[in-house]
Amino acid sequence: MQQVTRDIPAAIAALQAHFGERASSGQSQREQHAHTTTWIAPELPDLVVFAESAADVQRTVQICAEHRCPVIPFGVGTSLEGQLNAPEGGISIDFSRMDQVLEINAEDLNVTVQPGITREALNIALRDTGLFFPIDPGANASIGGMTATRASGTNAVRYGTMRENVLALEIVNAQGQIVHTGTRAKKSSAGYDLTHLMVGSEGTLGLSTAITLRLQGIPERIVSGSATFPSIDAACKTVIDTIQLGLPVARIELLDPMQVQACNQYSQLSLPEAPLLLVEFHGSDATVDEQIAQFGELAADHGCNQIDTADSLEERNRLWQARHDAYWAARALKPGCTAHSTDACVPISRLAECISETREDLDANGLTAPILGHVGDGNFHVLLLLDESDTDEITRAKGVVERLAARAIGMQGTCTGEHGIGQGKQAYLRDELGEAVPMMAAIKRALDPDNILNPGKIFSL
Amino acid sequence: MQQVTRDIPAAIAALQAHFGERASSGQSQREQHAHTTTWIAPELPDLVVFAESAADVQRTVQICAEHRCPVIPFGVGTSLEGQLNAPEGGISIDFSRMDQVLEINAEDLNVTVQPGITREALNIALRDTGLFFPIDPGANASIGGMTATRASGTNAVRYGTMRENVLALEIVNAQGQIVHTGTRAKKSSAGYDLTHLMVGSEGTLGLSTAITLRLQGIPERIVSGSATFPSIDAACKTVIDTIQLGLPVARIELLDPMQVQACNQYSQLSLPEAPLLLVEFHGSDATVDEQIAQFGELAADHGCNQIDTADSLEERNRLWQARHDAYWAARALKPGCTAHSTDACVPISRLAECISETREDLDANGLTAPILGHVGDGNFHVLLLLDESDTDEITRAKGVVERLAARAIGMQGTCTGEHGIGQGKQAYLRDELGEAVPMMAAIKRALDPDNILNPGKIFSL
Repeated sequence: MQQVTRDIPAAIAALQAHFGERASSGQSQREQHAHTTTWIAPELPDLVVFAESAADVQRTVQICAEHRCPVIPFGVGTSLEGQLNAPEGGISIDFSRMDQVLEINAEDLNVTVQPGITREALNIALRDTGLFFPIDPGANASIGGMTATRASGTNAVRYGTMRENVLALEIVNAQGQIVHTGTRAKKSSAGYDLTHLMVGSEGTLGLSTAITLRLQGIPERIVSGSATFPSIDAACKTVIDTIQLGLPVARIELLDPMQVQACNQYSQLSLPEAPLLLVEFHGSDATVDEQIAQFGELAADHGCNQIDTADSLEERNRLWQARHDAYWAARALKPGCTAHSTDACVPISRLAECISETREDLDANGLTAPILGHVGDGNFHVLLLLDESDTDEITRAKGVVERLAARAIGMQGTCTGEHGIGQGKQAYLRDELGEAVPMMAAIKRALDPDNILNPGKIFSL
Repeated sequence: MQQVTRDIPAAIAALQAHFGERASSGQSQREQHAHTTTWIAPELPDLVVFAESAADVQRTVQICAEHRCPVIPFGVGTSLEGQLNAPEGGISIDFSRMDQVLEINAEDLNVTVQPGITREALNIALRDTGLFFPIDPGANASIGGMTATRASGTNAVRYGTMRENVLALEIVNAQGQIVHTGTRAKKSSAGYDLTHLMVGSEGTLGLSTAITLRLQGIPERIVSGSATFPSIDAACKTVIDTIQLGLPVARIELLDPMQVQACNQYSQLSLPEAPLLLVEFHGSDATVDEQIAQFGELAADHGCNQIDTADSLEERNRLWQARHDAYWAARALKPGCTAHSTDACVPISRLAECISETREDLDANGLTAPILGHVGDGNFHVLLLLDESDTDEITRAKGVVERLAARAIGMQGTCTGEHGIGQGKQAYLRDELGEAVPMMAAIKRALDPDNILNPGKIFSL
């Protein structure tokens, strides 16, 4: 792409004139909006604008478009591949004040929200409807951020990812127009699927200002369980059997012994420190009992002697809160460390092999790194706990990440199941999809010719 | 878009030299490849190429790209909105000889096929795996065509549409490159979702040469049923309650009395000639019984006195074959007629109202037109049975279609749930998605600057 002549100071002046105190150039705000949580170095925006409406977002983009100034969307700041960085400077739009539920259509099982609402706040708002929104990445992320990275989480094995659960979007495009990408119909064959093009585009093609999501009925009965296995391989093989049998498990999460130990310490649990599967079943009384019994048989085939089940809301919440706190629990294993969470996803038949080779690679490189993940989808995470001052350790860790991406791609999988490409995985995207990447870049250039929307993410034009 | 200078004769000469007898310019082949089945007038291609491999498709597109000659993909010719027409002339690529299953990955619940295989042939090939491919538009369409129009059918209420069931594609793009849009991983956050951009793009952005599909386990037990209601409204309200309760019905189809009468005559059935729901439940013994009982209670609330169930494969097949033959059954109601099947899809809460207003409009215009459809998704069809020589009748029918599109859009639905835009619904697409349409056109221009891939479909550039 030819070099764009940006006039960032002019954009800042116009935005400050328009937004007054809602445009901040303070150092701490700028730092907070470029906090990467990983080994990716922060690159600060020049200004943070706090949007309160779609009109605010539109005005911001219009001003930025006029001056060809970069615009970077910010939800709550939990992305993991440098998606929030401002490598060319520019404006961070903070969506946290756009946190309203716009319309609950309980009778149609959908809801329209502003992008700044978090997944937990959304579920609180839905409390009286008998419905819930199932997608739950570990962090209490914003729905806008989850849309931008095509996020998923523990429930995806049953309910799908953001890809399956975003029905339609209102966006502001690079020209500053408000555009609706779909309707509230459950299905449609009307033209190109811009909704799905936007989901996972990491803010590079448009900024969401309203998001219509599918909802699910809260199951009549929910039972969680934990099952301990003699080896990671035995646990993975149980997962493979469960999926292949078509058992409609709602959650099936692997924690390796190091992660179990971390969770026990951090969340005051007393789980056996062995390879562990956390599962959950949703359904009616009859179906849940049937599912647990079937799962128990599969687990027993792989050496699991006992499944501890939790029926009550309190017990279940304690278990899943511990799972969602796994990242913080892992960090506590190595005080003062930097954590780098990487992810990969492979066809389920290759899961055991992929995890086992990755564990060998970690051990051979002397790295402290629990493995855990959404194994029902063939997706897992490695939490690399690193001493930032130990450059050799960082180098070894980067080697592990690179080989993991290559391993997953070699197994017909992907270098990222749910974290996205951002700045961190651009080389692996090219390894994975080859000639598809220039096609993506052509779309980017067509929709955002001045490269103002989150430049430098997914690919460097 | 500026006018492209096409040299179709040069492309024809090069293709004939390369493909020999596999390139046909015979009148009957050209006519067969532009047969529209509706009121849309046929527009014949200049040449039909019978592709036998991805390399053949690639060579065809490369020759066409060189001469800026249109290329139109052809599966089995069952599209309904003029998708196969050649308004600017050019080449029809016939995919019927690319009908192989390339790779069954039963352990990962997916399969990779060539685009010319039909859905019925695919399910025959899967027979020994315990798996099936659920998407079933009425016609025995090709998987490539179903991908291109984002097709669905009776099972979509439970298993989703082609949108949810295509995992990855191999395509030939407008530059004649072979590109892979995804992997076999169940989920991914790796870059733009080109797979979903291609699904439903009606051959205007790329031609599929291999399609990876999700598969489902064949349920332990399947029970079908038919339920008669005192009114269309009562049947629709039962559907709404079923969906809102979250009952995992696998199929729930409405047939209005005129369609029931047609099916009885055509398929030698003796269904009561009243508003009818055909349903199907998939699951284990226990869950299916539970679901039928729950559905029975909901239906009884709306005046249904009895549900006739069919357990045996033979009985079930007879019922669903009749449903799939509905189009032919309807045509037989008015011998010599032209049938025009139109579709719309609305949020489920608006279904009863949308169908009832549409029926009033049909009656007010004196048109013979059964209504039926995939009502669990809020999607229904109107089969307009028309005398082609009666121009006034055609005009009245076009008015009904136009008002149906406006009505669906006004209810926050879509002008097409599964048939696509093609040539027939371009004005309604603009009504439905406004400023999104120029964004789609920008993508088209970026990926196919000479407008060679199925020009004149979805929008006229």
